[in-house]
Amino acid sequence: MIIDSIYYQSLLTDRIKNAPRSFIREILKTAISPDVISFAGGLPNSKLFPVSDFQKATNKAYEKYGVSLFQYSNTEGFLPLREWISKRYFEKNGWKIDSKNILITNGSQQGLDLLGKILINEKDEVLIEQPGYLGAIQSLAVQGARFISVPMDDEGVNLDIFELKYFQSNSKLFYCVPAFQNPTGVLYSSEKIVQLSDIIRDRNMIVVEDTPYNDISFTQHAIPSFYNHIPDQTIILGSFSKTTVPGMRIGWIVAPDVLMDRLIVAKQAADLHTDISSQMIIYEYLTMGGNDKHIQHICDVYSSQCNAMVKAINEFFPEEVRFVVPKGGMFLWINMPKSVSSLKLFHDTLAQKVAFVPGVPFYADGRNDASTMRLNFSCSDKETIREGIQRMGSVLEKMLNQE
Amino acid sequence: MIIDSIYYQSLLTDRIKNAPRSFIREILKTAISPDVISFAGGLPNSKLFPVSDFQKATNKAYEKYGVSLFQYSNTEGFLPLREWISKRYFEKNGWKIDSKNILITNGSQQGLDLLGKILINEKDEVLIEQPGYLGAIQSLAVQGARFISVPMDDEGVNLDIFELKYFQSNSKLFYCVPAFQNPTGVLYSSEKIVQLSDIIRDRNMIVVEDTPYNDISFTQHAIPSFYNHIPDQTIILGSFSKTTVPGMRIGWIVAPDVLMDRLIVAKQAADLHTDISSQMIIYEYLTMGGNDKHIQHICDVYSSQCNAMVKAINEFFPEEVRFVVPKGGMFLWINMPKSVSSLKLFHDTLAQKVAFVPGVPFYADGRNDASTMRLNFSCSDKETIREGIQRMGSVLEKMLNQE
Repeated sequence: MIIDSIYYQSLLTDRIKNAPRSFIREILKTAISPDVISFAGGLPNSKLFPVSDFQKATNKAYEKYGVSLFQYSNTEGFLPLREWISKRYFEKNGWKIDSKNILITNGSQQGLDLLGKILINEKDEVLIEQPGYLGAIQSLAVQGARFISVPMDDEGVNLDIFELKYFQSNSKLFYCVPAFQNPTGVLYSSEKIVQLSDIIRDRNMIVVEDTPYNDISFTQHAIPSFYNHIPDQTIILGSFSKTTVPGMRIGWIVAPDVLMDRLIVAKQAADLHTDISSQMIIYEYLTMGGNDKHIQHICDVYSSQCNAMVKAINEFFPEEVRFVVPKGGMFLWINMPKSVSSLKLFHDTLAQKVAFVPGVPFYADGRNDASTMRLNFSCSDKETIREGIQRMGSVLEKMLNQE
Repeated sequence: MIIDSIYYQSLLTDRIKNAPRSFIREILKTAISPDVISFAGGLPNSKLFPVSDFQKATNKAYEKYGVSLFQYSNTEGFLPLREWISKRYFEKNGWKIDSKNILITNGSQQGLDLLGKILINEKDEVLIEQPGYLGAIQSLAVQGARFISVPMDDEGVNLDIFELKYFQSNSKLFYCVPAFQNPTGVLYSSEKIVQLSDIIRDRNMIVVEDTPYNDISFTQHAIPSFYNHIPDQTIILGSFSKTTVPGMRIGWIVAPDVLMDRLIVAKQAADLHTDISSQMIIYEYLTMGGNDKHIQHICDVYSSQCNAMVKAINEFFPEEVRFVVPKGGMFLWINMPKSVSSLKLFHDTLAQKVAFVPGVPFYADGRNDASTMRLNFSCSDKETIREGIQRMGSVLEKMLNQE
C-alpha cells in the first residue's frame, strides 16, 4: 500500500468529507491586504476592547486565585462566573436560571458542537434559518446533520414554510439567532416568536436560541426570546465575544437538567474544561464595574457606523437594492436584483479594493449563487464606510447597466 | 406530550446515551474531604507551577500583543508557538516537522475529539491499550467508537494479541501512550515499538501516539516513538499540561497534510480556535528561558515521591502484590491477587482516609471488577505517601487474611 493522499482520504469519516471548509475563511485570504476596505469580516471592533481593564482584572486574578489559575478545573466551569450569568438573566429578563443549568463553553461555537453530539444522530434533520449562521451550518454538518432551510422574512423565519417543513420533516431541532441575526441583521418580532412557540410547544422539538448579539442593541426594543414562552424546550447559547472580548473564547449554554447532564459528559470528552485562567479573569473584569457602560459604548459606535452605512447605501446604491435597517448587531444584508451574481460582484469590487461576503455560503442547501451579500459595519469608521459603499455603488450601477 | 425526563431522553443520540460518565469524577466526589490522603488524583502538583514566571510572561504579552491578545485569531493556532514546538521536536528528536503540520488544541484531549470526528464513523473499531487512558475511552466513545482492547505487559501492548486482533478487526486506529502510560506507568521498549511498526507499516492503520508524559522522565532512557519508524502513519498528541500548566488547556496535534486539512475544518467547527491570550502567554513563558530547568525540577520531585511510594509498598503491602517500578510519569499500577476486589478495597481504605482509583474504569471492554488499582504519586509528599501506603497495606493484609 502506498501512503499517499488517496490513502488518507480513504480513512476519513463520511461526515468530515461532507463538511464545508469555511468559505469566508477562503475568501478573506484574498481580501487580507491592508489597502482593501473590508466589510467582509465578522469581528467585533478591537479598538473598543477594554484592554487596560483586562490587565487590572488579570492582576487581581493573580492575587486572588494564585495557583488555581493554572490547575485542572471542573468541567461545568468556574462557579462564580456561572452564578454571575444566572444573576444577570434574572436582573435583565426576570428569568430564574440556576447556575447548575449553565455550562461554560469555548465560545458559543462549542455549545453547538456539544449539542450536536448529544442531539444529532448522523443524517438527522435540523431546521435552520435561510440565510443562516455559517458557524452553525459548519458545526452541525460535522455532526452529520441534514439541513431543512426555512427562508427569512423581515421579522424572522417565514411562519407558513416553518410549519410546513416542521410537519414534513423529522426535525427535532430548530437553530436560530432571533436577535440581530448573522447574516441578515433581522430582529425577530415578538409576534413571530409567540407564533413559532405555539407550533413547537409540547411537540418533539428543541429550539436552540443563539444570542451573541442580544446586548448589541441600537434601540429600546425588547429582545424577544423563546425562553419566555417555551422555556422547557429552549436551549440558549450565550457568549462574551461581542460584549467583552472574543479571543479568550468564553461562552455558555443554558439547558434543562437531563440535557445538561449529557452536555457535561460531552464537554468533558471534548476538552475536560474551558481555560480556567481566562474564566477567572473575565469574571474579575465583569465584577469590577464598568461592563454595562462599556457595552453601551459599543452600541453607540456600531449604531453610528450602521447609520453611516445606511445613509451611504441610500445615496450610492441603485434603487433596485433592498435591505432592512438593522436595529442592532454587526451586519447589514443586501438583496440585489436576481440578475446580479454576488460572486461576480465580489471580484469586481475587490478590483476596486472593497471586500464583502457574497450571500452564497449562508444558504445551508448549498445553492451556487445568490443575489445577496453581507456587509459588516462594526470594524470600519464612518468615512471609510462612505468611501467603500460609494465604490461598491459604482460597480453595481455598471453591472446593472450592462444587462 | 409531557416535557419530562423521558421526553429529553428520547431526544438523545445513541452515542451520548452510551458514553460513560467519568467514573473517576464520581469516585472523587466521595474522596474530596481534605483529611483524606489521596492517591486518586491525576493532577500535576500545583505547588510546582511557575506562577511568578507566568505573571512575568503575562505582562510581557500585554506589552507585545496588546489588543491581539483578545481578538478572534486563526484556527491553526499562534504561529510562533507552533514554530517553537516544531523547533523543539528538531532539537530533542531530530524530527523535521513543519509548523503547518501542527495544530494547537485545547489540551491533547481535544486532539482526540477532533481525530474522532475525522476518522471514526459510528461503530468503527479502535484498538486500545487495556488498561488504557480513560479520557481517550470517553472521548472516542462519544464519537461512537467500539473498542478492541489489547492487554498491556511490562513493555507495552502484548504483541501476539495485537497482531491477532488487528487482523481480526477492521480497526484503522490504534491509540496508545507509549511513555509512562496512564494508568500503568509503563514505558514501551524500543523493540516493542519496532515490532508494532513492522505490523502496521504500509497497512490501513494510523497510530495515535499520545505523549503528555514524555518529558516527565526519571532516567536517561530514550523515549521510543512510532514517529521514528512509521512517520506517515503516526499522529502525535502533545500537551503543555504536565510540563508547564494544565489549566490553560494548551496542547497540539501533529498530523500529515491531508489529515491536517480536515482537522482544521473540525477544529473550526468545534470552537473556531484555542484561547489566543493563553497561547501567547505560554509562548512568552516558554521563550523567556527556564522551562527546561523547571521540567527537570518536576522530574526530580516526582521521582523522589515515586521512590518513596515504591519503598513503602515494598515495606507495607503483602508480597503477593505485583507492580512495575515507573521510569517516569505520575502513576504506579498495582496488580493484586485475583481474589481482591478493588472496589471493596476502595471502600475499606476510604474508611481509613486513603483514596485511590480502582482499576475498573480503565478497561474499555467494561468489566465490572478488576484486582488492579492506580496510585498517583505526583501530588503527595514523601511522608504522606508513606503514611497512606501503610494504611492501605493494613487493609490489604486484612482482606487477604480473611479469605
